[in-house]
Amino acid sequence: MLAAFFVLSCASSQAPGATEPQAGAEPQALVDPLPSWNDNSTKARIIDFVRAVTDPEDPAFVEPADRVATFDNDGTLWVEQPLYTELAFALHRVKDLAKVHPEWKDQQPFKAVIEEDRDALVSAGTRGLIEIVMASHTGMSTTLFDTIVAEWLRDSRHPKLQKPYTELHYQPQLELLRYLEANGFKTFIVSGGSVEFIRMFSEEVYGIPRERVIGTSIATRYAVQAGKPTLLRLPEIDHVDDKAGKPVGIHQHIGRRPILAFGNSDGDFQMLEWTTVGSAGARLGLLLHHDDAEREYAYDRNSKIGKLDQALDAAGQSGWLIVSMKNDWNAVFTTK
Amino acid sequence: MLAAFFVLSCASSQAPGATEPQAGAEPQALVDPLPSWNDNSTKARIIDFVRAVTDPEDPAFVEPADRVATFDNDGTLWVEQPLYTELAFALHRVKDLAKVHPEWKDQQPFKAVIEEDRDALVSAGTRGLIEIVMASHTGMSTTLFDTIVAEWLRDSRHPKLQKPYTELHYQPQLELLRYLEANGFKTFIVSGGSVEFIRMFSEEVYGIPRERVIGTSIATRYAVQAGKPTLLRLPEIDHVDDKAGKPVGIHQHIGRRPILAFGNSDGDFQMLEWTTVGSAGARLGLLLHHDDAEREYAYDRNSKIGKLDQALDAAGQSGWLIVSMKNDWNAVFTTK
Repeated sequence: MLAAFFVLSCASSQAPGATEPQAGAEPQALVDPLPSWNDNSTKARIIDFVRAVTDPEDPAFVEPADRVATFDNDGTLWVEQPLYTELAFALHRVKDLAKVHPEWKDQQPFKAVIEEDRDALVSAGTRGLIEIVMASHTGMSTTLFDTIVAEWLRDSRHPKLQKPYTELHYQPQLELLRYLEANGFKTFIVSGGSVEFIRMFSEEVYGIPRERVIGTSIATRYAVQAGKPTLLRLPEIDHVDDKAGKPVGIHQHIGRRPILAFGNSDGDFQMLEWTTVGSAGARLGLLLHHDDAEREYAYDRNSKIGKLDQALDAAGQSGWLIVSMKNDWNAVFTTK
Repeated sequence: MLAAFFVLSCASSQAPGATEPQAGAEPQALVDPLPSWNDNSTKARIIDFVRAVTDPEDPAFVEPADRVATFDNDGTLWVEQPLYTELAFALHRVKDLAKVHPEWKDQQPFKAVIEEDRDALVSAGTRGLIEIVMASHTGMSTTLFDTIVAEWLRDSRHPKLQKPYTELHYQPQLELLRYLEANGFKTFIVSGGSVEFIRMFSEEVYGIPRERVIGTSIATRYAVQAGKPTLLRLPEIDHVDDKAGKPVGIHQHIGRRPILAFGNSDGDFQMLEWTTVGSAGARLGLLLHHDDAEREYAYDRNSKIGKLDQALDAAGQSGWLIVSMKNDWNAVFTTK
């Protein structure tokens, strides 16, 4: 199940049901709320949906308290290729820790990490991944973990795009988050990555406060050490927030079914299903399709990272909206 | 550990540290934000604290994002005597289910519940309590559970006060919640009770939305049944949000240490400790002391429900503020 630890997602769609937004409405406000989205049917569908659920006269109207929107993180809000950012962090941290673990140079999966042997790493499989996560993510206080993550985020660069990872979020998605919030939605991140990793940048990068981040979590234990209250990170997974774990995490944290969910991979299948299938009111499921090798990456069914296969097949029948990075976005990253 | 399932709390205090609110400030605004609180030193300390952490010129100033306030539920926001409301619900539900479980009339702890034999119920101990919780709280979808709780809350009455439980919240606490929110605080409920039970009334009764409720949780599993996405409640505890479980729940859900925590029992000890001890900035820990037999109940060290003993002893040294229901509140319940 830990293979799922780093599996996240991206996609787009709309729920079936009698109360769907009406076609033919005029989506353009005086100021375009989504300037990085091309003016086409994808954008129109999003704007129609928001207009419908916020219009008290519309049969699709949804009370503000129920306007919950959930976004996957890796591949939906920021770059996930060639490696999930958190996995890059974990590998870096294992290399760092190897200095005090000389035995690792002969011990898999650590040997593979130290030698940057991708084949051996892949061979180590789920069990190897668990060992890497536990070695890199646990055995310290939550405070120390935060510091380690913050320093790594500050100092590391994306191998292809040569920027800090925290600058590799998608500008159209920031616009969508703000647009939804301006229309009374509560936005949440629902990620297969570690909740505590994402919280280190969610406010600064996405404008989403820590308490609105849901993710995979490590068990912690409260203890008073030398008079100081501390939370210790244990080598034990608490919740895997991927695939069928996403509806569970959403329910536990939010206590409401979303009316909009945005993902990009098969890891988001159940989140979109839980959001859109068999519900009475208007719902919108979206999948970001990475089809832009020029500006970012192009991948779907055969990718080991962010595989989009089953969800792509289900999109038509489920009414999920496929967002094409290439055709629907006129900008990908935020220019500073 | 399940004995903790229904153990909650109530109390009041202020953190040590160099940046405490200054005495001598003028706490009275033009409109009193806490009219049900008597004008005395307890009220002054609360208002001084809020003034200090919201004043950019004050050394105790706290950024809005860090203004997190956590409140216990049973005995802090509403009545918990003579029995936690959720336990009353569980016992009622067991009696209801006994109709389809004829074998229970000879089987403890169910026999004790059916016969209202309190001594036998107490003898059944933690193991008995687990069986009652599992029988009453699991084995159905989350949607069905919500319906069962909503109907019970609508139809049941408090045995002494003869009102629906949802009318037995404390008016001074509603005022405090709104006062804190008006000053940029995010308020959360952090309860030993079930998160899904509390969410059925938290918005209506306390004005606290579902996603800001943290509590004990049952494991759930996502499944598609006859084409309908469903979350099934499993007979398995996921998290016990009491005592040392409260800092764990707070960290997992909010990702920030509170600067104000309000409880009423030993179940809140660690929440107040985590909030106030060994932290640099201004902090306020509060304990509600039930010393008002006339208007509500009087109990502390020797009560089986909401026992306040260890936390009462620690209050002085820890700087926690004891709020006396009798002396500090001029109203207890909201009059309609």
